Amino acid sequence: MPHRTRVVIVGAGFGGLETARRLAGEGLDVLLVDRHNYHTFFPLLYQVGAAEIDASEIAYPVRRIVRRWEGVRFRMAEARKLDPTSRTVSLAPPGDGDAAPEVVPFDHLILAAGSDAHFFGVPGAAEHAFPLRQVEHGLALRNHVLGRFERAEALTDPAARVAALTFVIVGGGATGVEYAGALAELVYRPLLRDHRGIRREEPRIVLLEAGEGLLPGVPERLGAYAARRLDRMDVEVRTGATVRRVGPREVEIEGGETLVAETVVWTAGVRGAGLAERWGLPVDRQGRVRVAPTLELAEAEGVWVLGDLAAPTGEDPPPMVAPVAIQQGAHVARSILRRVRAAEPEPFRYRDPGLLATIGRNAAVARLFGRTFTGYPAWALWAGVHIARLIGFRNRLVVLVSWAWDYVTFERVVRLILPLREAARLEERGRSSAPPSRP
Amino acid sequence: MPHRTRVVIVGAGFGGLETARRLAGEGLDVLLVDRHNYHTFFPLLYQVGAAEIDASEIAYPVRRIVRRWEGVRFRMAEARKLDPTSRTVSLAPPGDGDAAPEVVPFDHLILAAGSDAHFFGVPGAAEHAFPLRQVEHGLALRNHVLGRFERAEALTDPAARVAALTFVIVGGGATGVEYAGALAELVYRPLLRDHRGIRREEPRIVLLEAGEGLLPGVPERLGAYAARRLDRMDVEVRTGATVRRVGPREVEIEGGETLVAETVVWTAGVRGAGLAERWGLPVDRQGRVRVAPTLELAEAEGVWVLGDLAAPTGEDPPPMVAPVAIQQGAHVARSILRRVRAAEPEPFRYRDPGLLATIGRNAAVARLFGRTFTGYPAWALWAGVHIARLIGFRNRLVVLVSWAWDYVTFERVVRLILPLREAARLEERGRSSAPPSRP
Repeated sequence: MPHRTRVVIVGAGFGGLETARRLAGEGLDVLLVDRHNYHTFFPLLYQVGAAEIDASEIAYPVRRIVRRWEGVRFRMAEARKLDPTSRTVSLAPPGDGDAAPEVVPFDHLILAAGSDAHFFGVPGAAEHAFPLRQVEHGLALRNHVLGRFERAEALTDPAARVAALTFVIVGGGATGVEYAGALAELVYRPLLRDHRGIRREEPRIVLLEAGEGLLPGVPERLGAYAARRLDRMDVEVRTGATVRRVGPREVEIEGGETLVAETVVWTAGVRGAGLAERWGLPVDRQGRVRVAPTLELAEAEGVWVLGDLAAPTGEDPPPMVAPVAIQQGAHVARSILRRVRAAEPEPFRYRDPGLLATIGRNAAVARLFGRTFTGYPAWALWAGVHIARLIGFRNRLVVLVSWAWDYVTFERVVRLILPLREAARLEERGRSSAPPSRP
Repeated sequence: MPHRTRVVIVGAGFGGLETARRLAGEGLDVLLVDRHNYHTFFPLLYQVGAAEIDASEIAYPVRRIVRRWEGVRFRMAEARKLDPTSRTVSLAPPGDGDAAPEVVPFDHLILAAGSDAHFFGVPGAAEHAFPLRQVEHGLALRNHVLGRFERAEALTDPAARVAALTFVIVGGGATGVEYAGALAELVYRPLLRDHRGIRREEPRIVLLEAGEGLLPGVPERLGAYAARRLDRMDVEVRTGATVRRVGPREVEIEGGETLVAETVVWTAGVRGAGLAERWGLPVDRQGRVRVAPTLELAEAEGVWVLGDLAAPTGEDPPPMVAPVAIQQGAHVARSILRRVRAAEPEPFRYRDPGLLATIGRNAAVARLFGRTFTGYPAWALWAGVHIARLIGFRNRLVVLVSWAWDYVTFERVVRLILPLREAARLEERGRSSAPPSRP
């Protein structure tokens, strides 16, 4: 063999990390690439947006994770271009448009870049609604929500107070349900307690779902339970409510009704990360790359796609959730190792482990082992599974302490409006000082 | 009496909080104002810049602190203008230049706005050096330092690698010494361990102090100990080194030597917060307001200045440290209560509690009870005092867990390069959507 098999993995999410882990120690040269220096534990991101836990509790340095994985290196970079002919991918420092890219050859390339918010072309949604997909979204949303309460204290005009204190969440899937519940627990407990200038009946939380019930895709009983629980927590659940337009201070619902709100959170849709489409790969309507049942690109042997970004042909695309990405990551790693041994890869098959979503204190829904659970048992299950899956001992312990403290005191200590603008401006001086990476 | 005595406190730092606490429950109407919604525990801020603890561990929501203080309200706002004649102060939402200010009358006004970095007119320092005074400075510096290592991995030019991996700290006072030590512990342990593309001899940390020794103002033995310890930690300590100019990628030292470095941290000077000067109050060369020995402004009865912002006449101005601000906060509260009872305020006298500064693992210096300590005893004292003083039970516990974890593992889990620019941009949509506060 002329060289060790070179594998480049784009994306250090659940799928990319699993592939890297499975390829470690197999004598391959694995380069893992992400534009962030951390892995994001997405299932708890909504809690950052609700000031329940801090960003560092769901973000974990990738280098720390891969440190003991033999043969795996990490590079914080953006993948700019794929050249299937020369079998190279171009990498450049994130956010630095001027930097000359570094051209990296590969034998196998795994595209595990995940997904972005999908606004379905609803006018104004991309400009005015807050997505909740990345750590920075959680931080910006937290600042914005807490800022609404600080602002309302200084407002005397009743209509302006309504706009500041109305929070609309679009999308009744797991993220929307979880965020609505977490926001209600933040707003109606700690925020009202500490904002004596705001009356109990002023804040309003509305959850809009276009379909007939919450949590589409799981047994109806779970969605109905979630709706009842949220209603008891003073969240207005509106099903059959399609959003027609989002404005800077309002949401227009099909049928003509307009909700005046300075906060619109968008959890309604997800689409494959933009790079696939930019590179001209064959994508479906959701921006997911059409790959063979083996997850390999028909057009380019040795290029694999997995997780939210992959739409294997010949079946309904699997849901865009972490378990799919993890299973596909393991599958692609096995396929590459087979290929190295001159064996053929096999088609991927998804084993559905179920669903877990929390609504609030002692309230959750679960579908596991072919059964459904609600209430406290589901909640305990949810907490256990998420704590166990959180990467890194310290994070687990810190999250446990945070949760226990919140649970006992109905408190939220991460209620910080961080000066992101000032911090970003200060950081810019560092960027401007640096010469191009590859002069 | 026509109305309850109205007290406005500008600044929720150590001094402002202490004043509010002492005035609570005394039948006064107290309005505490800060442009952040949190109190910053400044003594541990350098640890944020060294990825040792997270921002939420040193920032604590003001509303949570004042919740049980009877008669004390909080407003997140900037103080824009003081009118001593009408005895009013104008407040406006932070960062919103267009907002019409709210005019608030007072009987007593306490200016406790603290201090900013002081660059002494050194060319380029304000533009290119990183200050370390506010939470956002800590976050930006953390991003920048971690970013230098990620960048260096992609650099092949030796000169470019030197610039990326040289870190210059200007100022050998407590903050400079503490940050130099914390940075050495970050760089030479976790960062080198996880950046296998960077050689042990490449990173360079230089601490520049213009005076003859480190920690000016404390017994020489402590400064000498700090210098020896830092030297053992591979920090180059240069005393008698005055900075003449800071450029985008270099620091010029008096005498002609130039250090090439993409990171320059400025801890060399502090001056009173700018608002006093903008309002035309009588300030000294350090921007501190000249007040009577009672801390009252001679020009306006009932206007008090304390902490870093105050320079009482008739003595050397006290050092710009937290104990002074806390003692002055208590003193001003007592004086206001005396005035309410028609008694005259007394001059402030500082009782120096000593000094504590940490250099690293098991290494610190202390001056307490007229004695000096170094090494492990000083370090244990330092940790105990700071944990005890941290506001909020959860923060204490979380910081303890962080420290214990770092201590056992030589690890740093908060090594996150947060996308501040993206978060700030996302937050802007919230700002632009909001109409002026007081239409």
